[in-house]
Amino acid sequence: MTLDEKIAQVVGFWEKEDGEAVAPLQGEFFEAATLDSFAKDGLGHLTRPYGTRPVDPVERAAWLWEFQRGLVTNTRLGIPALVHEECLTGLSAWKAATFPAPPSWGAAFDPELVEEMGAAIGTSMRALGIHQGLAPVVDVVRDPRWGRVEECIAEDPYLVGTVGTSYVRGLQSAGVHATLKHFVGYSNSRAGRNFAPVHAGPRELADVLLVPFEMALLDGGVRSVMAAYNEIDGVAVHGDPALLTGVLRHQWGFDGTVVADYFGIAFLQLLQRVAADLGEAASQALAAGVDIELPTGDAFLEPLKERIRSGQLDEALLDRAVVRALRQKDELGLLDATFDDAPPSEIDLDSPAHRAIARRLAEESVVLVSNDGTLPLATPRRVAVIGPNADRQAALFGCYSFVNHVLAQNPGYEVGFEAPTVLEALRAELVGVDVVSASGCAVDDDDRSGFDEAVAAASTSDVAVLVMGDHAGLFGRGTSGEGCDRDDLELPGVQRDLVEAVLATGTPVVLVLVTGRPYAVGWALESCAAVVQTFFPGEEGAAAIAGVLSGRVNPSGRLPLSLPRGAGALPYSYLHPLLGEGDEVSNLSTTPPAEFGHGLSYTSFAYDVLDVAEATPTDGELRATVRVTNTGDRAGDEVVQLYVHDLVGSVTRPVAQLVGFRRVHLEAGQSALVTLHVPTTRVAFSDRALNRVVEPGDLEVWFGTSSKRLVEGRTTLVGNVHPVTTSSPRWTTAEVR
Amino acid sequence: MTLDEKIAQVVGFWEKEDGEAVAPLQGEFFEAATLDSFAKDGLGHLTRPYGTRPVDPVERAAWLWEFQRGLVTNTRLGIPALVHEECLTGLSAWKAATFPAPPSWGAAFDPELVEEMGAAIGTSMRALGIHQGLAPVVDVVRDPRWGRVEECIAEDPYLVGTVGTSYVRGLQSAGVHATLKHFVGYSNSRAGRNFAPVHAGPRELADVLLVPFEMALLDGGVRSVMAAYNEIDGVAVHGDPALLTGVLRHQWGFDGTVVADYFGIAFLQLLQRVAADLGEAASQALAAGVDIELPTGDAFLEPLKERIRSGQLDEALLDRAVVRALRQKDELGLLDATFDDAPPSEIDLDSPAHRAIARRLAEESVVLVSNDGTLPLATPRRVAVIGPNADRQAALFGCYSFVNHVLAQNPGYEVGFEAPTVLEALRAELVGVDVVSASGCAVDDDDRSGFDEAVAAASTSDVAVLVMGDHAGLFGRGTSGEGCDRDDLELPGVQRDLVEAVLATGTPVVLVLVTGRPYAVGWALESCAAVVQTFFPGEEGAAAIAGVLSGRVNPSGRLPLSLPRGAGALPYSYLHPLLGEGDEVSNLSTTPPAEFGHGLSYTSFAYDVLDVAEATPTDGELRATVRVTNTGDRAGDEVVQLYVHDLVGSVTRPVAQLVGFRRVHLEAGQSALVTLHVPTTRVAFSDRALNRVVEPGDLEVWFGTSSKRLVEGRTTLVGNVHPVTTSSPRWTTAEVR
Repeated sequence: MTLDEKIAQVVGFWEKEDGEAVAPLQGEFFEAATLDSFAKDGLGHLTRPYGTRPVDPVERAAWLWEFQRGLVTNTRLGIPALVHEECLTGLSAWKAATFPAPPSWGAAFDPELVEEMGAAIGTSMRALGIHQGLAPVVDVVRDPRWGRVEECIAEDPYLVGTVGTSYVRGLQSAGVHATLKHFVGYSNSRAGRNFAPVHAGPRELADVLLVPFEMALLDGGVRSVMAAYNEIDGVAVHGDPALLTGVLRHQWGFDGTVVADYFGIAFLQLLQRVAADLGEAASQALAAGVDIELPTGDAFLEPLKERIRSGQLDEALLDRAVVRALRQKDELGLLDATFDDAPPSEIDLDSPAHRAIARRLAEESVVLVSNDGTLPLATPRRVAVIGPNADRQAALFGCYSFVNHVLAQNPGYEVGFEAPTVLEALRAELVGVDVVSASGCAVDDDDRSGFDEAVAAASTSDVAVLVMGDHAGLFGRGTSGEGCDRDDLELPGVQRDLVEAVLATGTPVVLVLVTGRPYAVGWALESCAAVVQTFFPGEEGAAAIAGVLSGRVNPSGRLPLSLPRGAGALPYSYLHPLLGEGDEVSNLSTTPPAEFGHGLSYTSFAYDVLDVAEATPTDGELRATVRVTNTGDRAGDEVVQLYVHDLVGSVTRPVAQLVGFRRVHLEAGQSALVTLHVPTTRVAFSDRALNRVVEPGDLEVWFGTSSKRLVEGRTTLVGNVHPVTTSSPRWTTAEVR
Repeated sequence: MTLDEKIAQVVGFWEKEDGEAVAPLQGEFFEAATLDSFAKDGLGHLTRPYGTRPVDPVERAAWLWEFQRGLVTNTRLGIPALVHEECLTGLSAWKAATFPAPPSWGAAFDPELVEEMGAAIGTSMRALGIHQGLAPVVDVVRDPRWGRVEECIAEDPYLVGTVGTSYVRGLQSAGVHATLKHFVGYSNSRAGRNFAPVHAGPRELADVLLVPFEMALLDGGVRSVMAAYNEIDGVAVHGDPALLTGVLRHQWGFDGTVVADYFGIAFLQLLQRVAADLGEAASQALAAGVDIELPTGDAFLEPLKERIRSGQLDEALLDRAVVRALRQKDELGLLDATFDDAPPSEIDLDSPAHRAIARRLAEESVVLVSNDGTLPLATPRRVAVIGPNADRQAALFGCYSFVNHVLAQNPGYEVGFEAPTVLEALRAELVGVDVVSASGCAVDDDDRSGFDEAVAAASTSDVAVLVMGDHAGLFGRGTSGEGCDRDDLELPGVQRDLVEAVLATGTPVVLVLVTGRPYAVGWALESCAAVVQTFFPGEEGAAAIAGVLSGRVNPSGRLPLSLPRGAGALPYSYLHPLLGEGDEVSNLSTTPPAEFGHGLSYTSFAYDVLDVAEATPTDGELRATVRVTNTGDRAGDEVVQLYVHDLVGSVTRPVAQLVGFRRVHLEAGQSALVTLHVPTTRVAFSDRALNRVVEPGDLEVWFGTSSKRLVEGRTTLVGNVHPVTTSSPRWTTAEVR
């Protein structure tokens, strides 16, 4: 391969319109503004028609087959391009199914269902000729001020790892490579600001932030990893060989590709200022272990070529990346592909099967946070449905959804698919009920002119359903989403004032939160009849909410993220040592209004007979069994959660740590024995010398939520200090009898 | 020495009343409740009469001489006790001079004056038979939510190191050993909560948090260091040999004593939970390098003895601590002391000389943050002095002052010394002016009943001076101080509402902040005629404030701490890389309303002719000269500040970094040439491999404040990467011509 041919394989082309390029970050670095001239020596990656405008999938596939055939035929090496697209909550495309946002996956505590979703997404993508999806995001939530919380799954690293791995398995089962984002630390940025430095030590990195990546890589077999924009303790990840090669390749044995985050290599010069020019940025990134520059070749085209030609950089480093890029294409069948077969002549991106998954996941993800008995709604005569997210379709979707990504900027485009609003779903759900509505206010301005109408509607109703929350958008265009951080965790705009104005009428208020992050709504838990939390629940989300309100659906979601006390109480994680919570040493409590794992049901569950061995070998398995009984009068799902507290460690240990969970469906009166088999790896941590070990000693063990212990016991880890390796078992399994 | 005699030398006795002990943390660990029985084998440390009740210094000295004579005579080894006391802003004692709080030292940018203060404090202490002062605090401020910010100097590590070293030199020049607090990381606790875990990597630790300790130890020759309560990335400092022995002893060559923070060893078991019992806690601490347990022997008495007797712990570790303890006593002359000399028969703890230092430091520390010309007050007919800190003596003092520490709990005690309130000082200052007053509200409750009176007073006045801020207290008894953290950085209580009510009258408002931390008063910079920031300015503070308001004193303080945007914007430091500030990648700006280094004067200064070499050797000295001219019509002090920005580093570098400063007095029309000689060590940092180096490359260089560049230039560091060692010069020096 010539130098040009090699470089062509490790850069991408971001296509704006058919064959036309989105400008690179700094226009001077290449002149080829059209795909054909750009790809004359071949092309590594091609991306982005679906996420930028309405694209007919059949037409697009035909165009793509033609283009790939051109690469096969007209370039010397005849290697097709790898096509990647955004797909976090479904392919980010016109008319494509849009599933609930990742915190909803966390709330559902149902990895099997997420795997089904991943497979459905992958199947659509593969049919369209797309080979790699830029998902899932397995960053562990560390600060809800960050706008990208809506793209993350949970604040518990193992929950993130379990659900994230399921997504990877699902997507890759369809022949589409998943991409772990963002390796690593991005969610831990200072004060929740996008791109801000990460202040974390190596133990926090190893025991919290790296965990989901390790699981999705070792157990999910992910084929690609995206480097993170951030620095950690001064070192920019895109230029860090310790992480991109040491951890990924040497420690974990990863042999897939590492892709840059968009413009992340150029940012080594422009924003991190650890490289004097793009050539140095390219050298650092390539040497560190970034294989592919995305979206295009700001650094890997001319600047890298110049470095190699001048002898400043060893071409062997480029060869290493090229080999990985070609290996990935080989795995995808691209090296043998001729594109002589016919592209699909018909494709439904939002089939009934997709809808069914979207509906189940939405239903399982609704969290009933508080309820004085108002829910399910008995037989109201009249219901007022109020709030900026009540009758707004876009409220159901995250920032990378087609609706919020493309339609928000191009309102002239046709939406393309059915997704009822919460108001519409409630009208359909509450047959025979007089449903009146008022928006009351917008998501994020200070206009109170709609308050009177909303208050009037509530005053004459039996119950007021207030549907509040976020509007997702990119780069400052929303209250949630990439580049939409908050320094205040009150509900945006005047929404709290609207809730309080309606509360003043005396009509019971059901507050339905449709958000991308948890907000500081402790006040609402006190004052509202019920509070329901959802995280952008997707195209079937409104029906799921309506079903929970009516009682058709028995809520079973559990908070994947603690509700914050307020922006001034952050950062906070339930995974804190004793001194991370309120205590006599500070006047301030840190206890959140509702903690990770919390969620109510319309039925009740009794826990008894915790069975846990007195002694557990440090290199063995902690087995805990509980009997759970549905003691209410209707069927429901319970999320059985098992926590431990390691009483004494060589380093500080959290007061509560989730080590296993299982969603169980129980009919009224039915019991189940749930046994969780927890490998001791789950209580391992990095010791003083940063070796990951299981130490002997006492563990408190309980079923419940992190703070609420329904049945509790104790076991002693016995034996020697057990070193944990990549071949140690990591997965808790469950038996239900 | 017997085992009992050894242990006696490494524990303390906290005396409540003469000879009677404050109970240890866990009462069961020793039975000796009186000093005599406790000290039968000798005694390491004795502490605390002054800080708990009014003590007549002459009587106390006589008692102490007698007690020490008893130790010399009646114990087998005849070794006196080392007496330590709190002394941060002056000996924490009845009738003792109380100087401005540490952020005022930072604001004064006058290390020489702080050294004078330290010497004055030390002289009083030594006369009373006290050998060690538990000061200074050289923790670098990282989050103003933390209650102990009032005990810290600044957010810049070199400013903290320079001023802290001056304090050490002053105190120790009087023969009293200083104690660096709190080694290390304590100020960096999560969300500004006292005792909460520190999330920081090794580079932040080395380049920010350790810097002042290194300076005060290597250049100040401090003789004692106190371990910090906190953990860092999971490792509790009281049990960390890497810090307490590796950094302190091996890297820095420290041969003084390491003392535990009060109960800090027991907390390894009780709060950190890294030790199963007190014996293990004692072993960990002793092995890590804690020499002396304070305040008493929770862990080092019976639990440690048992560990040694049972052979679980090598007695040589105890011997190591005992040798250090005795070496310190030897340095203090205690091993030869007989106490046959007479104790002082007369002592003035608040002499005119002390007063003069307190006054100068207070005057230099007042920061004029904003001013529309209302200040200095022209010739008002009538001034309203309003606010909870206007006529409250305790408002002038920090949490460890006698006034707030003891009198707050025992209001029956006599105050014992003169300290006019701001109202009293203004009445004295503004001769012939009708001064009316109203408190308006308390510091921290929601009572608005005094608003009307305050508004009425303001309405009929030419100007309203609103004196607002904190009440210092310990453990939740104040709005600032140890254990008094905030999760909201609005002024406490209803103070902002009171300011706004007075603003509504149209009378110009001069807002005087008397606080322990910076508050989010960006709104006030917009709406008030002038804003004056002081940090608990001490016994002469009210007169200094009055002098600034009248114009008798030309303000010259500069902010040692950025004013925060709000609690939700934290943590923030001016020492952030480019991606730590607002940018198109986040919708939120981080720019503070007024940044580190900012402060106005009643005269004006012009800067010109920056002279800086084009090239500076990496192992040399950056020399920068500027001409500063007082272009106004009155004399004033300017704090000349020199900043750099390292344009490209192997790790991310801050956008601004103070490398030198000099306070200069200039008469009207006078010019001075100020040359700063900056050793390159000041721009060193920990590289990728955590080696501290100076790297070649370009530096932007400017005189100004961090964000405001009055004259700017550039130099290039030339030569090889220069490794910085403990013998590298660290100190910027100044010439003024």
